[in-house]
Amino acid sequence: MVKSAAAPLAGSPARPPAPRIARAVARTGSSAIRDLLEITERPEIISLAGGLPTPDAFPVADLARATAEVLADDPHAALQYGASEGFRPLRAWVADRYRVGGGTGHEAGVAGVTITHGSQQALELLARATTDPGEVIALADPGYVGAIQAFRSAGAELVGIASDRHGLCVDDLERHLAAGLRPTLVYVVATFDNPTGATLPLDRRLALAELADRYGFWIVDDDPYGTLRWAGPAVTPLRELSDRVISVGTTSKMLCPGLRVGWAVSPPELARALVVLKQAADLHTGSLSQHVVHRLVARPDGWLDAHLEVVRARYRAQADVLVAELHAQLGDRLAFRSPEGGMFLWATLADGAGGAVGDTSALLERALAHGVAFVPGRAFGVSADHPRSLRLSFATTDAAGLAEGVRRLGLALDRSGR
Amino acid sequence: MVKSAAAPLAGSPARPPAPRIARAVARTGSSAIRDLLEITERPEIISLAGGLPTPDAFPVADLARATAEVLADDPHAALQYGASEGFRPLRAWVADRYRVGGGTGHEAGVAGVTITHGSQQALELLARATTDPGEVIALADPGYVGAIQAFRSAGAELVGIASDRHGLCVDDLERHLAAGLRPTLVYVVATFDNPTGATLPLDRRLALAELADRYGFWIVDDDPYGTLRWAGPAVTPLRELSDRVISVGTTSKMLCPGLRVGWAVSPPELARALVVLKQAADLHTGSLSQHVVHRLVARPDGWLDAHLEVVRARYRAQADVLVAELHAQLGDRLAFRSPEGGMFLWATLADGAGGAVGDTSALLERALAHGVAFVPGRAFGVSADHPRSLRLSFATTDAAGLAEGVRRLGLALDRSGR
Repeated sequence: MVKSAAAPLAGSPARPPAPRIARAVARTGSSAIRDLLEITERPEIISLAGGLPTPDAFPVADLARATAEVLADDPHAALQYGASEGFRPLRAWVADRYRVGGGTGHEAGVAGVTITHGSQQALELLARATTDPGEVIALADPGYVGAIQAFRSAGAELVGIASDRHGLCVDDLERHLAAGLRPTLVYVVATFDNPTGATLPLDRRLALAELADRYGFWIVDDDPYGTLRWAGPAVTPLRELSDRVISVGTTSKMLCPGLRVGWAVSPPELARALVVLKQAADLHTGSLSQHVVHRLVARPDGWLDAHLEVVRARYRAQADVLVAELHAQLGDRLAFRSPEGGMFLWATLADGAGGAVGDTSALLERALAHGVAFVPGRAFGVSADHPRSLRLSFATTDAAGLAEGVRRLGLALDRSGR
Repeated sequence: MVKSAAAPLAGSPARPPAPRIARAVARTGSSAIRDLLEITERPEIISLAGGLPTPDAFPVADLARATAEVLADDPHAALQYGASEGFRPLRAWVADRYRVGGGTGHEAGVAGVTITHGSQQALELLARATTDPGEVIALADPGYVGAIQAFRSAGAELVGIASDRHGLCVDDLERHLAAGLRPTLVYVVATFDNPTGATLPLDRRLALAELADRYGFWIVDDDPYGTLRWAGPAVTPLRELSDRVISVGTTSKMLCPGLRVGWAVSPPELARALVVLKQAADLHTGSLSQHVVHRLVARPDGWLDAHLEVVRARYRAQADVLVAELHAQLGDRLAFRSPEGGMFLWATLADGAGGAVGDTSALLERALAHGVAFVPGRAFGVSADHPRSLRLSFATTDAAGLAEGVRRLGLALDRSGR
């Protein structure tokens, strides 16, 4: 009866279902990477593609104990609605952590800390708080896929800035600014970039901070990997170089991703805007997750440092295997730098390698046929295509899998070379 | 050094910090209710204001056991990144639950279920997927504050439709439509509305479904309270009356709010759009929360039904106390209907009650001075003000607190009457 009226009446003021659905899908354009990731998750495929932390390093027993303690000690608060800005003791822990080293940046304190549902949410809320649809966000090209999706979903226009083995080419950004580009945000993964693994050296950080002050944009420094350094000296954090830096962090690589606890550390006036958007977006981040995370990371016995030592040792061992196998099995067909931390190795096909095809998207199809996956450069393209590059992750797969994965990658390259 | 350049160079192409921050705050305009809720949380205040479920009904021991089991049985999946659409067994449980009763609506199945970070996120993602900034969402006036914030945050224009003791006045909506209003969504809390407690009767549901088919809008039926019915017959769900109904649900009132697990059940093509937005917004809902919720609600021993029986009995008892105390202590100064479920009682000052002031916002100030809080009608206004109405919650406060709260409310009314 009701259904019989489903067809709009002739001459009625009917209108078709909202066409925005298709537009929303097209705008974020994430289907290619989603389709890819689905293929790479087939059990017969050795995946060097995903950005999944190895579950073998999840602190399962400690998380179980912390959860049991929280539910025994303070169940009503841990299971009830909470403040949109986050659980205050966890915000205080973040504020303390970011104050270490002092520095010249903004002294946000607790008022500047917004707990988010993973750092992905921090990126989207930051874009929505600072950037009207059509305004520009600039970032390194290639860039992090999650950030690209968050910024596009917020309606931002993205401009890719050149990057090299040292990360964002700040001189290229300066040329864009001099030519009139006015970004609201410049997004960087300054330490162990995703996908390139590059770490921005101090001189570029200083130059970037100066540009932010001169042109009035925010720098968003997304730092999931900074705690995963096992070689080389740490570089002064951007937040100590300018008060226009927003630091974004997460527990996903320190503990595990499934709790979805991240944060943005910003000047308080920006934090107030984030909280308003956060409240409308999902009221607040899960209370139980925040309580459990706080109980673990704030343990006075230094548990977190000891745990991070274990995670770093594991990733270092896996990175060493990947590098050794690439050298041993592929010779000079791939050019890359040995990682000093993080989860990724960015490689470029040497001239001649890959043969007539020469495109890592085409190479991926052959690689999948041989049972190994990586992410082709094209997936990280902002304005450029990166057809000769690819990202290899050493985070998810153990040593034996990495060696076999490289062997299969070699077979795919051989076939491409024919 | 870097900081010395913070002042824009004279003649440089400098621009002020992005002005959108202030605009974002102004757009959602939530500060009044936030300020109010902060006051009502003072320990000396008896709060009849909040929408907090009573923590005494949280299934703490069962949640602790379910969490321990999940972390023992399947820790890697429960702590790892997950699918943006949600944990498949939980989606299947939702699909099964919504299929009960069959009906003429869309048969979405698992493909139509999107797990969200609480139902609040479902509301915002739905608005963003279907509604361009400036387009219209229609809802009952007074309306649910969280929905108003979510829709405004998404840039929608809100139009309030009259409502009465039976909920949304569908004939008023029809007049708006005939006059040219073209909403993308019509939002209802069809069962035990927030704030009015009203339940939409079947004839209005049928009329609303027919209008949706005729004019091509989506109906969003937000249903957090449907499981909390202790009196009166259940009414056929809207989803069984039209395939243009999107059902939104949550575990916040069934289990507890702190896990942040909700869902939208929609036609699959809309679910695909939601998933793309969800991925950009926060990748996915917390894995551990979803695993724990699934383990509890899908228990084959009927645990959920038994637990809901306990929650209903508690709310019924508290509602009975509130109603009895209002009658005994305030006589006919407040007009209201006795709740048959849900968490709220909507009351209106009788003529003369409240005296010269006559405004529940002014009454609130006096009530706070006497140590009791409620939410004045104005807080729920979409287009109208509701100056003579107020919302009382019986969910958070126990019987003794409810009696004393009504006594204090009587004192505030006495003083207003002077």
